[in-house]
Amino acid sequence: MSKRVAVYRKEHFNAAHRLFRPDLSAQENDRLFGKCALPNYHGHNYELIVKVTGEPDPITGYVVDMKWISDLVQEKIIERFDHRNLNLDTQEFKALNPTAENIAIVIYDLLRPHVLAQHDLQIRLYETPRNFVEYPA
Amino acid sequence: MSKRVAVYRKEHFNAAHRLFRPDLSAQENDRLFGKCALPNYHGHNYELIVKVTGEPDPITGYVVDMKWISDLVQEKIIERFDHRNLNLDTQEFKALNPTAENIAIVIYDLLRPHVLAQHDLQIRLYETPRNFVEYPA
Amino acid sequence: MSKRVAVYRKEHFNAAHRLFRPDLSAQENDRLFGKCALPNYHGHNYELIVKVTGEPDPITGYVVDMKWISDLVQEKIIERFDHRNLNLDTQEFKALNPTAENIAIVIYDLLRPHVLAQHDLQIRLYETPRNFVEYPA
Amino acid sequence: MSKRVAVYRKEHFNAAHRLFRPDLSAQENDRLFGKCALPNYHGHNYELIVKVTGEPDPITGYVVDMKWISDLVQEKIIERFDHRNLNLDTQEFKALNPTAENIAIVIYDLLRPHVLAQHDLQIRLYETPRNFVEYPA
Amino acid sequence: MSKRVAVYRKEHFNAAHRLFRPDLSAQENDRLFGKCALPNYHGHNYELIVKVTGEPDPITGYVVDMKWISDLVQEKIIERFDHRNLNLDTQEFKALNPTAENIAIVIYDLLRPHVLAQHDLQIRLYETPRNFVEYPA
Amino acid sequence: MSKRVAVYRKEHFNAAHRLFRPDLSAQENDRLFGKCALPNYHGHNYELIVKVTGEPDPITGYVVDMKWISDLVQEKIIERFDHRNLNLDTQEFKALNPTAENIAIVIYDLLRPHVLAQHDLQIRLYETPRNFVEYPA
Repeated sequence: MSKRVAVYRKEHFNAAHRLFRPDLSAQENDRLFGKCALPNYHGHNYELIVKVTGEPDPITGYVVDMKWISDLVQEKIIERFDHRNLNLDTQEFKALNPTAENIAIVIYDLLRPHVLAQHDLQIRLYETPRNFVEYPA
Repeated sequence: MSKRVAVYRKEHFNAAHRLFRPDLSAQENDRLFGKCALPNYHGHNYELIVKVTGEPDPITGYVVDMKWISDLVQEKIIERFDHRNLNLDTQEFKALNPTAENIAIVIYDLLRPHVLAQHDLQIRLYETPRNFVEYPA
Repeated sequence: MSKRVAVYRKEHFNAAHRLFRPDLSAQENDRLFGKCALPNYHGHNYELIVKVTGEPDPITGYVVDMKWISDLVQEKIIERFDHRNLNLDTQEFKALNPTAENIAIVIYDLLRPHVLAQHDLQIRLYETPRNFVEYPA
Repeated sequence: MSKRVAVYRKEHFNAAHRLFRPDLSAQENDRLFGKCALPNYHGHNYELIVKVTGEPDPITGYVVDMKWISDLVQEKIIERFDHRNLNLDTQEFKALNPTAENIAIVIYDLLRPHVLAQHDLQIRLYETPRNFVEYPA
Repeated sequence: MSKRVAVYRKEHFNAAHRLFRPDLSAQENDRLFGKCALPNYHGHNYELIVKVTGEPDPITGYVVDMKWISDLVQEKIIERFDHRNLNLDTQEFKALNPTAENIAIVIYDLLRPHVLAQHDLQIRLYETPRNFVEYPA
Repeated sequence: MSKRVAVYRKEHFNAAHRLFRPDLSAQENDRLFGKCALPNYHGHNYELIVKVTGEPDPITGYVVDMKWISDLVQEKIIERFDHRNLNLDTQEFKALNPTAENIAIVIYDLLRPHVLAQHDLQIRLYETPRNFVEYPA
């Protein structure tokens, strides 16, 4: 019988962002995003939990080595977003509003090609300890 | 392809309660609920996590605005239960034992009508950092 | 040279309470204590951190055995307050308003006689994760 | 309509372990497990979250009494693993590498016979605050 | 005998910032501040703990009402810094490098005039869960 | 006027240990240390908070760069103790019982020579989330 186990690794990065759409008026941006639309950016300590699900390898007892997840996240996500301004400094959010939802989808799309096909991947992203998202749901 | 994302918002309230059934003897209440049945109530800092799942809006990048969840919980849950005695002060637990399970179900039923039909709703309720429940499972 | 070390042990209890003074009007109690004065009580998961400071014993390397602190707190504090209504069920708060400040002072006074004279004692009490007190300051 | 609720109880134990396979060379163990293969063991504060899912009992309002879960975990898991060396002191990991994945599966198998057939069981195990697993996934 | 108690209240705000000195070269800023000097800002979820020490009022049992601290911090600190860019949007950090140390000193100086002379004030500021400061030490 | 600020940096390491004295009988070790004396070791996720107190540098606004503390702790403490057996693998605890008190004193003594003379140093060490120590007190 198959025994699927989920493995979680928690990482973090700090970034600045602002929520707004350049195609909408300042008034409309304020109505939609409130303080999050303020022009000079604010920021967060993003906590990122990467979940990989699969069967433990019969030799190692690992689904995947958590250090491997950590290194992958370091290379593909932290190097890209840590201490950056998501709106100004990244290709990914040039035309995409950096809501927690969209950041989680972007992180998933960046990591998915590097995870084995037989493994499932899920991203949880904490924007603050009280606001967080999960993708895919 | 549909991209469903789960959005979580954490809130809290403080309340007194006691677990007991008026139709059972004191002895039977003590056997079932132990110290939780003591007559003069005890209390908890309840931590409440509301999860709403759906597709991000293509304009805003939000499934729902977390501030909207926060305001809804404030109006429908916190105003009703915060700093209250669940057994004495609320309509909901007049005839229903205020276990964590039942409180979560009640909160779900109070919020569900206000969440869009295409969105899923789930409640996690921490009675203490070591005891918590989730509904629907 | 003397090497004083502080040893901390964290415990918890759940209790109901209400803040009010019977010698004041309902209006005055409401002005002073707001929702905390509501008549049917509310409650908290109190987190209690007991700090004992002294020199490590040259044989054991302990200032005091943390299990000894835990047992002492269990016997003198948890048995007395856990799952109780502080206003109704305890001698200590019959005539004393159970603010976090006063609860901390009462806990200190209950534990101090059992701690060695050459050791210092300090109490930290969390009423919620955002409201806490320390005594003596 | 059925109303399934998940009930969670958090416990902990401290243990020593080392990741290695006696049938592999020291070099191969180092390649697979790095510092986790060091010969004299290291250790963790394991945080264990047990999830039981079912319908609340119409009398008590409990799926199961959380104190019952706590007592069960105490008897079947904590007594067995707490303050032990998983590789040397336990039957379960004599021939099984004590990765977080395998520990979670072992705990599940030890608890499953004691949980009602109509209830689901799931184990979450934190090896560190940043590394954790869940079984079944 | 005087019984001084410390009362703590935890609040938070999110802000963008960057560490650099306009009077130094880019190279020198990079040497001193590394990634924190990147030109387009990054950000943090700042957790702020305000400590007020004094004797409990004999009538209320409060040193100060924690809600009063919370309202004061809201008015003087959160309104000023939350969702702002500390370098661009605030008077305080126009000519002062917004290190955690300097932010804590600025917050102290903003709050001190509003705290009673017989009360002591101390600020703890978490820039991340792993980096924090306290003033005065 | 001097403005002293305390700067804190949190790090962690995992280690195995056992509390016992070779010059005492097994019975006496059991009486003194209980389960902590079990012969095959157990282990902990140690959380280490290093506090350095001094005046912020007028140029940088730093008391010390937190990255510098982090690197120092990495080199002097983590490399030495992480994934090690404190009793068997370290010089420091060959003849010293590795209680939390003694580990904190040893860490202080290892770091103190590397911290500027005008700065104060204090160590807080969490053996578990409920047991921790501070040195000097």
